[in-house]
Amino acid sequence: MTDSADAPVVGMVGAGQLARMTAQAAISLGVGFRVLAESAADSAAQVTAGVQVGDYRSLPDLQAFAAGCDVLTFDHEHVPGEHLAALEQAGVPLRPGAAALRFTQDKLAMREQLTGLGIGCPRFAPVSGIAEVEAFAAGTWPVVLKAVSGGYDGKGVWVCGSAAEAQAVLGHGLRLIAEEYVAFERELAVLAARSPHRQGAVYPVVETVQRDGICREVIAPAPGLTPGRAAQAAELALRIAEALGVTGLLAVEMFETSRGLLVNELAMRPHNCGHWTIEGARTSQFEQHLRAVLDLPLGSPAPAAPVTVMANVLGGGDADVYDRYIHVMAADPAVKVHMYGKPVRPGRKIGHVTVTGDRDHRDPAELTDRARRAASYLRWGKEDGP
Amino acid sequence: MTDSADAPVVGMVGAGQLARMTAQAAISLGVGFRVLAESAADSAAQVTAGVQVGDYRSLPDLQAFAAGCDVLTFDHEHVPGEHLAALEQAGVPLRPGAAALRFTQDKLAMREQLTGLGIGCPRFAPVSGIAEVEAFAAGTWPVVLKAVSGGYDGKGVWVCGSAAEAQAVLGHGLRLIAEEYVAFERELAVLAARSPHRQGAVYPVVETVQRDGICREVIAPAPGLTPGRAAQAAELALRIAEALGVTGLLAVEMFETSRGLLVNELAMRPHNCGHWTIEGARTSQFEQHLRAVLDLPLGSPAPAAPVTVMANVLGGGDADVYDRYIHVMAADPAVKVHMYGKPVRPGRKIGHVTVTGDRDHRDPAELTDRARRAASYLRWGKEDGP
Repeated sequence: MTDSADAPVVGMVGAGQLARMTAQAAISLGVGFRVLAESAADSAAQVTAGVQVGDYRSLPDLQAFAAGCDVLTFDHEHVPGEHLAALEQAGVPLRPGAAALRFTQDKLAMREQLTGLGIGCPRFAPVSGIAEVEAFAAGTWPVVLKAVSGGYDGKGVWVCGSAAEAQAVLGHGLRLIAEEYVAFERELAVLAARSPHRQGAVYPVVETVQRDGICREVIAPAPGLTPGRAAQAAELALRIAEALGVTGLLAVEMFETSRGLLVNELAMRPHNCGHWTIEGARTSQFEQHLRAVLDLPLGSPAPAAPVTVMANVLGGGDADVYDRYIHVMAADPAVKVHMYGKPVRPGRKIGHVTVTGDRDHRDPAELTDRARRAASYLRWGKEDGP
Repeated sequence: MTDSADAPVVGMVGAGQLARMTAQAAISLGVGFRVLAESAADSAAQVTAGVQVGDYRSLPDLQAFAAGCDVLTFDHEHVPGEHLAALEQAGVPLRPGAAALRFTQDKLAMREQLTGLGIGCPRFAPVSGIAEVEAFAAGTWPVVLKAVSGGYDGKGVWVCGSAAEAQAVLGHGLRLIAEEYVAFERELAVLAARSPHRQGAVYPVVETVQRDGICREVIAPAPGLTPGRAAQAAELALRIAEALGVTGLLAVEMFETSRGLLVNELAMRPHNCGHWTIEGARTSQFEQHLRAVLDLPLGSPAPAAPVTVMANVLGGGDADVYDRYIHVMAADPAVKVHMYGKPVRPGRKIGHVTVTGDRDHRDPAELTDRARRAASYLRWGKEDGP
């Protein structure tokens, strides 16, 4: 209860960059904010007054953390389901709740639920052996294998070009589903919020650009999206949030294909696809998540600029990122730099930059170029090709 | 050194709301940030990981604080000048430095310096007795008396309607200057930044609306200001910053009069007149201050909206401010709420709200009305008349 006596305290399990940016939003709202960190060096733990170091896989640690908070929320989806159930049983308000979170922890349940709602998804099937994978492939490769929950060595998705590759993945001994490899036109994402009072709000649909399986840029709004498809994507996110009983944010990652929109992944927390909202929308996703979690009226998700582009900063070969600020800032005084205080490792997301357009600068390609240059400067020594 | 090993640590002496909002900006920049707080309950101390509780009037406390920081800056102007000099002598980088800060601590020196630069100021004179005050007044009252430094019982400015009132102020035994009571048309403010590399940047000129001696609203840009006068005000702020050797922010409060612009007060830190920049400018004043203090290239001070209005939230009769969020947020989902975590006392600044316009909503009166309503809701029970 670090803040004025009457303001509630939100506890976030996990202390990565999502918690770090949520902490900033909590400061403005004047609500208490605490994190359950794995280490005091975690991204959010460095900058938050209310840090408890503990293990999110330990029920006693979670219970101790919950005791100092009015409501719990999450910066990742790895808290064991049985612990979530136990906390709810004990009366701890979880937002989102255990029933909703299950669909971020069990990809088979998520696929079955969405399909049951009539929502377009890639074709999928649970598989437990190579014969089932080959039957699913029916001679057409690649096939995508996904761990139903968790993963192996930090990885949960494998694009398998052959039965032999699938066999290697099966060797990890995980529960898997097979999914068709979708020849998408591009990837889109929609971010919605839903409060316990069942108020909903949805941000403009964005285009997410991935390279080597990592999100590199987000363009808001998605260029050239037809109003009909934008409305369809927004409606879809609100419908999923309502059907799954989400409280807080819901990020829906989608493929835009010749068959229409297919849902790829769900997350129930602030999400990389929404970092642009800090400068680009009237209400940042982090504030929106807090408002939803606290059952306050949701903020306006309206854009604050005609176009906003976010680019992730990936770690390069040189650890001294600060040394390069001068180049980024001198080259483009309007670019916004967000660094996460994370040790630099090649390929790791260590920050992001945002460029907002205005009436005279609304060309997504121009803004993307500026964002990409700034991110590339911060990475240094490893130029990012398009 | 809470952040990545190579990022510098900025120490701010004082832990009020200015430090609190600077802490938010430091998180984005990924630089270390520490505050020297009077108490762990201070506005910024509640939300900052790096808090040292100590006395800014104690040189040992300042020295101990400085030892953990790469550069020191200030959220108020009350650190004794001899301590500033001692710190500089010991090699601690102060931004702004002691020579510049003197002009915020000694109003007579400030007036003499500005007058020497040919900058318009209210007529003034040092006074030490009633005869001098009466000679200054020359029969025309009111006359303004100001404490040269510090003040009495938290007050440093007195508008005296008569010799008897002036006599009462003289009775406090302070060093005083007399100033003419300026019949201004309105009050303006300009915020500039200057870096050790002597880069300068200036924000759009704003109108500040005061009631009962307290800033109530800030309208950016100042409505109806002629381009010539806007340029004059901006030039004036940059010239003062350069002449006084300011590093960091400089806020210049001015009277707009029939005789032109007259400088009222100076501050060398983030300032209430710049809170609108959090949402309303490409670079917030808090980030700008950090960039200047760290000698990084300054950020763009360009507006992010055609009009932005900030209204201060003053404490009312009811301490339970959080209880009223629901009304404010439901009534206006686009208003941005910034609360400072300060105990509510009637008339005390406990937060602010900001409303940004867009292409279709650029009427300062309409936006001011929205901001005032939101601030009034949060105050509750004490309606603010215009």
